[in-house]
Amino acid sequence: MQRPPAEPGMSEDQIDTPALVIDLDALESNLDAMAAYCKKASVRLRAHAKTHKSPVIARWQALRGAVGQCVQKVGEAEVLAWGGVDDILISNEVIGPQKIARLAALSRMSTVALCADDMRGIEQIEAAAQFVSSRLTVLVEINVGSGRCGVDPGAPAVVLAQRIARSKHLVFGGLQAYHGGAQHMRLPGERETAVGIASEMTRRTVEQLSKAGLPCPVVGGAGTGTFAIEALGGVYNEIQAGSYVFMDVDYSRNKPPSAFRQSLFVLATVMSAARDGVAVVDCGHKGMAIDSGMPLVDGREDIIYSSASDEHGTLRIDGAGNRLSVGERLRLVPGHCDPTVDRYDWYVGVRNRRVEMVFPVAARGMMQ
Amino acid sequence: MQRPPAEPGMSEDQIDTPALVIDLDALESNLDAMAAYCKKASVRLRAHAKTHKSPVIARWQALRGAVGQCVQKVGEAEVLAWGGVDDILISNEVIGPQKIARLAALSRMSTVALCADDMRGIEQIEAAAQFVSSRLTVLVEINVGSGRCGVDPGAPAVVLAQRIARSKHLVFGGLQAYHGGAQHMRLPGERETAVGIASEMTRRTVEQLSKAGLPCPVVGGAGTGTFAIEALGGVYNEIQAGSYVFMDVDYSRNKPPSAFRQSLFVLATVMSAARDGVAVVDCGHKGMAIDSGMPLVDGREDIIYSSASDEHGTLRIDGAGNRLSVGERLRLVPGHCDPTVDRYDWYVGVRNRRVEMVFPVAARGMMQ
Repeated sequence: MQRPPAEPGMSEDQIDTPALVIDLDALESNLDAMAAYCKKASVRLRAHAKTHKSPVIARWQALRGAVGQCVQKVGEAEVLAWGGVDDILISNEVIGPQKIARLAALSRMSTVALCADDMRGIEQIEAAAQFVSSRLTVLVEINVGSGRCGVDPGAPAVVLAQRIARSKHLVFGGLQAYHGGAQHMRLPGERETAVGIASEMTRRTVEQLSKAGLPCPVVGGAGTGTFAIEALGGVYNEIQAGSYVFMDVDYSRNKPPSAFRQSLFVLATVMSAARDGVAVVDCGHKGMAIDSGMPLVDGREDIIYSSASDEHGTLRIDGAGNRLSVGERLRLVPGHCDPTVDRYDWYVGVRNRRVEMVFPVAARGMMQ
Repeated sequence: MQRPPAEPGMSEDQIDTPALVIDLDALESNLDAMAAYCKKASVRLRAHAKTHKSPVIARWQALRGAVGQCVQKVGEAEVLAWGGVDDILISNEVIGPQKIARLAALSRMSTVALCADDMRGIEQIEAAAQFVSSRLTVLVEINVGSGRCGVDPGAPAVVLAQRIARSKHLVFGGLQAYHGGAQHMRLPGERETAVGIASEMTRRTVEQLSKAGLPCPVVGGAGTGTFAIEALGGVYNEIQAGSYVFMDVDYSRNKPPSAFRQSLFVLATVMSAARDGVAVVDCGHKGMAIDSGMPLVDGREDIIYSSASDEHGTLRIDGAGNRLSVGERLRLVPGHCDPTVDRYDWYVGVRNRRVEMVFPVAARGMMQ
């Protein structure tokens, strides 16, 4: 485990780098804004912990009205449950006897549910559920446009739901209908069209399930890019946004700009500046995800983070005579927040450039 | 920390996924081949631990004649020293008083050296070295073509070396002259040209230093893509290859094919297969670096790992009627080995598809 890069009371300039820094004012503003939105739209918020991986941030969301958390992995669910989160949905298929047994065991500690899109997967879940006293809740995941996981909407989903409902060890929990591909469509019209189609497919599946005597307690989906569309459509009752707590360069490219503020930064130090117009910082792609592009340098439009190697970031500096000095510190805005968080063991929470708290990225690396 | 995904004695089919798997036969073959090469070429091997991050693998290299290890970060040096490695070079600049103080402290436990390319950096190192009884060894890094870190060869390097040599707390250790950009040039002629130029710049700098009364105990550089060129050039005396222990898709694209075998895999499970021609595995880019491209599926040329999201990998399967089943397991060949290793807390060493050992990626995440 990494050593904590800071202690409360330090100034931001004293934090060891690279470090994962949260601007607490911006974070709280984001938490408040989403809570207010969901309240106004009368939709439940089940925030996605794949972004923050922290029972601490989950508690801040719960205090503002979130009904629970989503995760992608059993390991993440365990860390949240051990940290006091009492209602967790694995918004994903869980395959393999070890994982399902762990999840079944966890269901004695917190309320947990999971998704399925395959008959054999449901049979495996059922086999594991026999050994717990309570019944396991299973949602059917439907493919609403991303073409990744999920059974086709309509009849194929109903067949799986009926299989779940027939089991004396399982409870049919509803539909998982997330359109990941729509989150980063840049124009509002594109997102509205994609989510409109997804919502209609979901609505019809809910209707067919209802006719088959299977009401859907949960109809969940939506992310930071589209949640307002799902929230107002009347089909979804749970919003699963995660990135809104932190934001990133990728989301900042969506139009129009969102009300959420950038609260997550990677603090880096200039380690080499041997040539005019070039500098190198101590954070490359081992310390920051670049799958959605390079980071921006906060407040410094004259500097381009032009390429990342494992442990180095190469910066190009505009303007004649403009140089950075070795030891200078920069706040980088990550291209993609979720996998960047997963590179660190510690959050450093700052307010007015002073360290207010240090707390763990508790579910870091929980991929299993 | 992740839970160990396997226990010794298990079959490969029982390993929880995603998991980082080493084929021990292939690894040993690679270790032997590099040791034999360096012995024949009369060049020292200082293997790069930024790849394996493990004192265990470092020991296997030492037992075959390696004189020590390279690392990129102070945190990596600490973990190696604590694991018994007694000669460590940080092949990188170290900036900031906390890090230099930790390195100075470490020098009382193991032999450590570091690099510098900046006068102020050297002054910081000197200030920290005052507090240790022994002197710290500092190499001057020169830019031999990558344009990242490193002072210009020739006179600017001599100025820094003289500054180091003048200090009563520092020892001038030689030159760090790594051409990162040459490692993945695809054609041998390209690599020979680039390394030929780098070697000539290095040779001249060594000569100028010698005239200034500063011999170079270490002239280090080279990687898995070019080490044979540096080894035979008569300028470099230490080879810093790291990736040869594992190999990856990126290195497999170099011509001609290398003698090193693929020994590193990420084991993944099919979690969804709801549509013909498509399947989804439980390992995306949180579990595997994609900065150098997507992974290959070992032994399955009919399957393309076409895209990675955070926790999902989407596969396209060639051929009508070809399907994968939920629960099937695949060995993925990572696009880039070093940052993939950094995603895991445990290596699972297998031989003939049986788990022989499980040991930690001890310096995982040590970015500071």
